[in-house]
Amino acid sequence: MVKILKIDHLGIAVKNLDEAVKLYKDILGLELVKVEEVPEEKVRIAMFKVGESYIELLEGTSPESAISKFIEKRGEGIHHIALRVDNIHEAVKELKNKVKLVYEEPRTVAKGERTITFIHPKSAHGVLLELVERREE
Amino acid sequence: MVKILKIDHLGIAVKNLDEAVKLYKDILGLELVKVEEVPEEKVRIAMFKVGESYIELLEGTSPESAISKFIEKRGEGIHHIALRVDNIHEAVKELKNKVKLVYEEPRTVAKGERTITFIHPKSAHGVLLELVERREE
Repeated sequence: MVKILKIDHLGIAVKNLDEAVKLYKDILGLELVKVEEVPEEKVRIAMFKVGESYIELLEGTSPESAISKFIEKRGEGIHHIALRVDNIHEAVKELKNKVKLVYEEPRTVAKGERTITFIHPKSAHGVLLELVERREE
Repeated sequence: MVKILKIDHLGIAVKNLDEAVKLYKDILGLELVKVEEVPEEKVRIAMFKVGESYIELLEGTSPESAISKFIEKRGEGIHHIALRVDNIHEAVKELKNKVKLVYEEPRTVAKGERTITFIHPKSAHGVLLELVERREE
Protein backbone atom coordinates (compact mmCIF):
# COMPACT_ATOMS: atom_id res chain seq x y z
CA MET A 1 0.00 0.00 0.00
CA VAL A 2 1.10 3.52 -0.70
CA LYS A 3 0.94 5.68 2.39
CA ILE A 4 1.44 9.37 1.63
CA LEU A 5 2.12 11.48 4.69
CA LYS A 6 2.29 15.01 3.31
CA ILE A 7 3.67 17.25 0.59
CA ASP A 8 7.40 16.97 1.18
CA HIS A 9 8.44 19.77 -1.15
CA LEU A 10 7.75 21.60 -4.39
CA GLY A 11 10.60 21.93 -6.87
CA ILE A 12 10.66 25.19 -8.83
CA ALA A 13 13.07 25.68 -11.75
CA VAL A 14 14.58 29.19 -11.87
CA LYS A 15 17.16 30.86 -14.08
CA ASN A 16 18.84 32.85 -11.35
CA LEU A 17 18.75 31.41 -7.85
CA ASP A 18 19.83 34.60 -6.08
CA GLU A 19 17.08 36.64 -7.75
CA ALA A 20 14.45 34.04 -6.91
CA VAL A 21 15.63 33.80 -3.30
CA LYS A 22 14.91 37.52 -2.96
CA LEU A 23 11.24 36.92 -3.74
CA TYR A 24 10.71 34.01 -1.36
CA LYS A 25 12.92 35.29 1.45
CA ASP A 26 12.88 39.08 1.39
CA ILE A 27 9.47 39.76 -0.13
CA LEU A 28 7.39 36.79 1.06
CA GLY A 29 9.32 36.39 4.31
CA LEU A 30 9.78 32.62 4.17
CA GLU A 31 12.45 30.94 6.26
CA LEU A 32 15.52 30.07 4.16
CA VAL A 33 16.82 26.75 5.48
CA LYS A 34 19.80 26.23 3.21
CA VAL A 35 21.49 27.09 -0.07
CA GLU A 36 23.77 24.44 -1.51
CA GLU A 37 25.23 23.01 -4.67
CA VAL A 38 24.33 19.44 -5.63
CA PRO A 39 27.06 18.57 -8.16
CA GLU A 40 25.66 15.12 -9.06
CA GLU A 41 22.47 16.79 -10.30
CA LYS A 42 24.22 19.87 -11.68
CA VAL A 43 22.05 22.25 -9.68
CA ARG A 44 22.24 24.86 -6.97
CA ILE A 45 19.27 24.80 -4.64
CA ALA A 46 17.64 26.97 -1.99
CA MET A 47 15.22 25.38 0.49
CA PHE A 48 12.49 27.31 2.30
CA LYS A 49 10.35 25.98 5.11
CA VAL A 50 6.61 26.48 4.61
CA GLY A 51 4.56 24.81 7.33
CA GLU A 52 5.32 21.07 7.26
CA SER A 53 6.66 21.28 3.68
CA TYR A 54 9.49 22.91 1.77
CA ILE A 55 9.77 24.97 -1.37
CA GLU A 56 12.95 24.08 -3.25
CA LEU A 57 14.29 26.50 -5.87
CA LEU A 58 16.61 24.89 -8.41
CA GLU A 59 19.05 26.58 -10.78
CA GLY A 60 20.97 24.48 -13.30
CA THR A 61 24.76 24.85 -13.11
CA SER A 62 25.29 23.36 -16.57
CA PRO A 63 23.26 23.31 -19.80
CA GLU A 64 23.07 19.51 -19.41
CA SER A 65 21.27 19.70 -16.09
CA ALA A 66 17.64 18.52 -16.20
CA ILE A 67 16.64 21.89 -14.76
CA SER A 68 18.38 23.88 -17.50
CA LYS A 69 16.76 21.67 -20.14
CA PHE A 70 13.35 22.11 -18.52
CA ILE A 71 13.73 25.91 -18.58
CA GLU A 72 14.99 25.80 -22.16
CA LYS A 73 11.84 23.94 -23.19
CA ARG A 74 9.13 25.36 -20.95
CA GLY A 75 10.51 28.43 -19.23
CA GLU A 76 10.83 28.94 -15.51
CA GLY A 77 8.16 27.35 -13.34
CA ILE A 78 7.11 24.46 -11.16
CA HIS A 79 9.21 21.41 -11.99
CA HIS A 80 7.94 18.70 -9.64
CA ILE A 81 5.80 17.87 -6.62
CA ALA A 82 7.37 15.60 -4.01
CA LEU A 83 5.11 13.50 -1.78
CA ARG A 84 6.50 12.04 1.42
CA VAL A 85 5.80 8.31 1.78
CA ASP A 86 6.38 6.22 4.86
CA ASN A 87 7.96 3.35 2.91
CA ILE A 88 9.32 3.88 -0.59
CA HIS A 89 9.94 0.20 -1.28
CA GLU A 90 6.36 -0.69 -0.41
CA ALA A 91 5.17 2.19 -2.57
CA VAL A 92 7.22 1.05 -5.57
CA LYS A 93 6.01 -2.53 -5.20
CA GLU A 94 2.42 -1.30 -5.22
CA LEU A 95 2.85 1.17 -8.07
CA LYS A 96 5.22 -0.39 -10.57
CA ASN A 97 2.53 -2.25 -12.50
CA LYS A 98 0.12 0.66 -12.44
CA VAL A 99 2.21 3.68 -13.44
CA LYS A 100 5.47 4.42 -15.24
CA LEU A 101 8.20 4.93 -12.64
CA VAL A 102 11.44 6.72 -13.49
CA TYR A 103 13.41 4.41 -11.16
CA GLU A 104 11.87 0.98 -10.64
CA GLU A 105 14.53 0.51 -7.98
CA PRO A 106 14.37 3.50 -5.61
CA ARG A 107 17.56 5.57 -5.40
CA THR A 108 19.15 6.63 -2.16
CA VAL A 109 20.58 10.13 -2.44
CA ALA A 110 22.06 12.90 -0.30
CA LYS A 111 24.32 10.57 1.69
CA GLY A 112 21.49 8.25 2.63
CA GLU A 113 19.17 10.97 3.80
CA ARG A 114 16.46 10.32 1.20
CA THR A 115 15.30 7.44 -0.97
CA ILE A 116 13.31 8.47 -4.00
CA THR A 117 11.64 7.62 -7.25
CA PHE A 118 9.41 9.56 -9.63
CA ILE A 119 6.13 8.82 -11.34
CA HIS A 120 6.63 9.85 -14.96
CA PRO A 121 4.49 12.79 -16.14
CA LYS A 122 2.98 10.49 -18.79
CA SER A 123 1.38 8.49 -15.99
CA ALA A 124 0.44 11.52 -13.92
CA HIS A 125 -1.39 13.97 -16.17
CA GLY A 126 1.65 16.07 -16.96
CA VAL A 127 3.01 16.25 -13.40
CA LEU A 128 6.42 14.94 -12.39
CA LEU A 129 5.56 13.36 -9.02
CA GLU A 130 8.49 12.51 -6.78
CA LEU A 131 7.97 9.98 -3.98
CA VAL A 132 10.39 10.38 -1.13
CA GLU A 133 11.11 8.52 2.09
CA ARG A 134 13.37 10.39 4.53
CA ARG A 135 15.57 8.71 7.07
CA GLU A 136 14.61 11.32 9.59
CA GLU A 137 13.44 14.93 9.80
CA MET B 1 4.23 42.01 6.91
CA VAL B 2 3.39 38.89 4.96
CA LYS B 3 2.91 35.90 7.24
CA ILE B 4 2.72 32.62 5.33
CA LEU B 5 1.44 29.72 7.41
CA LYS B 6 1.70 26.76 5.03
CA ILE B 7 1.05 25.47 1.54
CA ASP B 8 -2.72 25.71 1.31
CA HIS B 9 -3.11 23.75 -1.91
CA LEU B 10 -1.63 22.93 -5.29
CA GLY B 11 -3.83 23.44 -8.33
CA ILE B 12 -3.32 20.90 -11.13
CA ALA B 13 -4.99 21.37 -14.53
CA VAL B 14 -6.30 18.11 -16.01
CA LYS B 15 -8.24 17.25 -19.14
CA ASN B 16 -10.43 14.60 -17.58
CA LEU B 17 -11.20 14.94 -13.88
CA ASP B 18 -12.53 11.42 -13.43
CA GLU B 19 -9.41 9.86 -14.95
CA ALA B 20 -7.12 12.02 -12.81
CA VAL B 21 -9.13 11.23 -9.65
CA LYS B 22 -8.35 7.55 -10.27
CA LEU B 23 -4.63 8.22 -9.98
CA TYR B 24 -4.77 10.28 -6.80
CA LYS B 25 -7.52 8.30 -5.07
CA ASP B 26 -7.32 4.70 -6.23
CA ILE B 27 -3.63 4.39 -7.06
CA LEU B 28 -1.98 6.81 -4.62
CA GLY B 29 -4.62 6.29 -1.91
CA LEU B 30 -5.16 9.96 -1.06
CA GLU B 31 -8.30 11.04 0.76
CA LEU B 32 -10.84 12.59 -1.62
CA VAL B 33 -12.52 15.41 0.29
CA LYS B 34 -14.92 16.70 -2.34
CA VAL B 35 -15.79 16.89 -6.02
CA GLU B 36 -17.77 19.91 -7.11
CA GLU B 37 -18.53 22.26 -9.95
CA VAL B 38 -17.57 25.93 -9.59
CA PRO B 39 -19.68 27.59 -12.30
CA GLU B 40 -18.24 31.11 -11.81
CA GLU B 41 -14.80 29.77 -12.72
CA LYS B 42 -16.07 27.27 -15.31
CA VAL B 43 -14.33 24.35 -13.65
CA ARG B 44 -15.03 21.06 -11.94
CA ILE B 45 -12.66 20.35 -9.09
CA ALA B 46 -11.61 17.43 -6.90
CA MET B 47 -9.87 18.15 -3.57
CA PHE B 48 -7.57 15.67 -1.85
CA LYS B 49 -6.17 16.04 1.65
CA VAL B 50 -2.38 15.59 1.88
CA GLY B 51 -1.09 16.31 5.38
CA GLU B 52 -1.94 19.92 6.22
CA SER B 53 -2.42 20.83 2.54
CA TYR B 54 -4.68 19.93 -0.36
CA ILE B 55 -4.17 18.89 -3.95
CA GLU B 56 -6.87 20.40 -6.15
CA LEU B 57 -7.47 18.90 -9.59
CA LEU B 58 -9.22 21.26 -12.00
CA GLU B 59 -11.00 20.43 -15.26
CA GLY B 60 -12.37 23.25 -17.42
CA THR B 61 -16.09 22.96 -18.22
CA SER B 62 -15.87 25.42 -21.12
CA PRO B 63 -13.17 26.34 -23.64
CA GLU B 64 -13.20 29.85 -22.10
CA SER B 65 -12.19 28.64 -18.68
CA ALA B 66 -8.68 29.69 -17.60
CA ILE B 67 -7.91 26.01 -17.02
CA SER B 68 -8.91 24.98 -20.55
CA LYS B 69 -6.80 27.80 -21.98
CA PHE B 70 -3.84 26.79 -19.83
CA ILE B 71 -4.06 23.18 -21.09
CA GLU B 72 -4.48 24.38 -24.68
CA LYS B 73 -1.26 26.37 -24.36
CA ARG B 74 0.95 24.26 -22.08
CA GLY B 75 -0.68 20.87 -21.71
CA GLU B 76 -1.83 19.29 -18.46
CA GLY B 77 0.22 20.09 -15.38
CA ILE B 78 0.63 22.17 -12.26
CA HIS B 79 -1.32 25.40 -12.62
CA HIS B 80 -0.73 27.24 -9.35
CA ILE B 81 0.65 27.07 -5.81
CA ALA B 82 -1.56 28.53 -3.09
CA LEU B 83 0.07 29.80 0.10
CA ARG B 84 -2.04 30.31 3.21
CA VAL B 85 -1.59 33.74 4.78
CA ASP B 86 -2.95 34.86 8.12
CA ASN B 87 -4.13 38.24 6.80
CA ILE B 88 -4.64 38.79 3.09
CA HIS B 89 -5.22 42.55 3.39
CA GLU B 90 -1.94 43.01 5.27
CA ALA B 91 -0.20 40.87 2.68
CA VAL B 92 -1.56 42.91 -0.22
CA LYS B 93 -0.59 46.18 1.45
CA GLU B 94 2.96 44.87 1.88
CA LEU B 95 3.27 43.36 -1.59
CA LYS B 96 1.49 45.69 -3.99
CA ASN B 97 4.49 47.94 -4.62
CA LYS B 98 6.90 45.03 -4.89
CA VAL B 99 5.20 42.52 -7.18
CA LYS B 100 2.47 42.46 -9.81
CA LEU B 101 -0.77 41.30 -8.15
CA VAL B 102 -3.66 39.95 -10.21
CA TYR B 103 -6.20 41.55 -7.81
CA GLU B 104 -4.92 44.62 -5.96
CA GLU B 105 -8.15 44.40 -3.96
CA PRO B 106 -8.41 40.82 -2.61
CA ARG B 107 -11.49 38.89 -3.76
CA THR B 108 -13.75 37.00 -1.42
CA VAL B 109 -14.96 33.79 -3.04
CA ALA B 110 -16.79 30.56 -2.21
CA LYS B 111 -19.53 32.28 -0.18
CA GLY B 112 -17.06 34.13 2.00
CA GLU B 113 -14.99 31.08 2.84
CA ARG B 114 -11.78 32.37 1.25
CA THR B 115 -10.26 35.75 0.33
CA ILE B 116 -7.59 35.58 -2.33
CA THR B 117 -5.25 37.27 -4.73
CA PHE B 118 -2.48 36.05 -7.01
CA ILE B 119 1.08 37.13 -7.63
CA HIS B 120 1.45 37.24 -11.39
CA PRO B 121 3.91 34.70 -12.88
CA LYS B 122 5.91 37.62 -14.31
CA SER B 123 6.76 38.65 -10.75
CA ALA B 124 7.30 35.10 -9.50
CA HIS B 125 9.68 33.38 -11.91
CA GLY B 126 6.97 31.70 -13.94
CA VAL B 127 4.86 30.52 -11.01
CA LEU B 128 1.25 31.59 -10.46
CA LEU B 129 1.27 32.08 -6.67
CA GLU B 130 -2.12 32.34 -5.00
CA LEU B 131 -2.34 33.92 -1.55
CA VAL B 132 -5.33 32.78 0.43
CA GLU B 133 -6.82 33.64 3.81
CA ARG B 134 -9.50 31.22 4.99
CA ARG B 135 -12.31 32.16 7.36
CA GLU B 136 -11.85 28.85 9.13
CA GLU B 137 -10.63 25.31 8.52
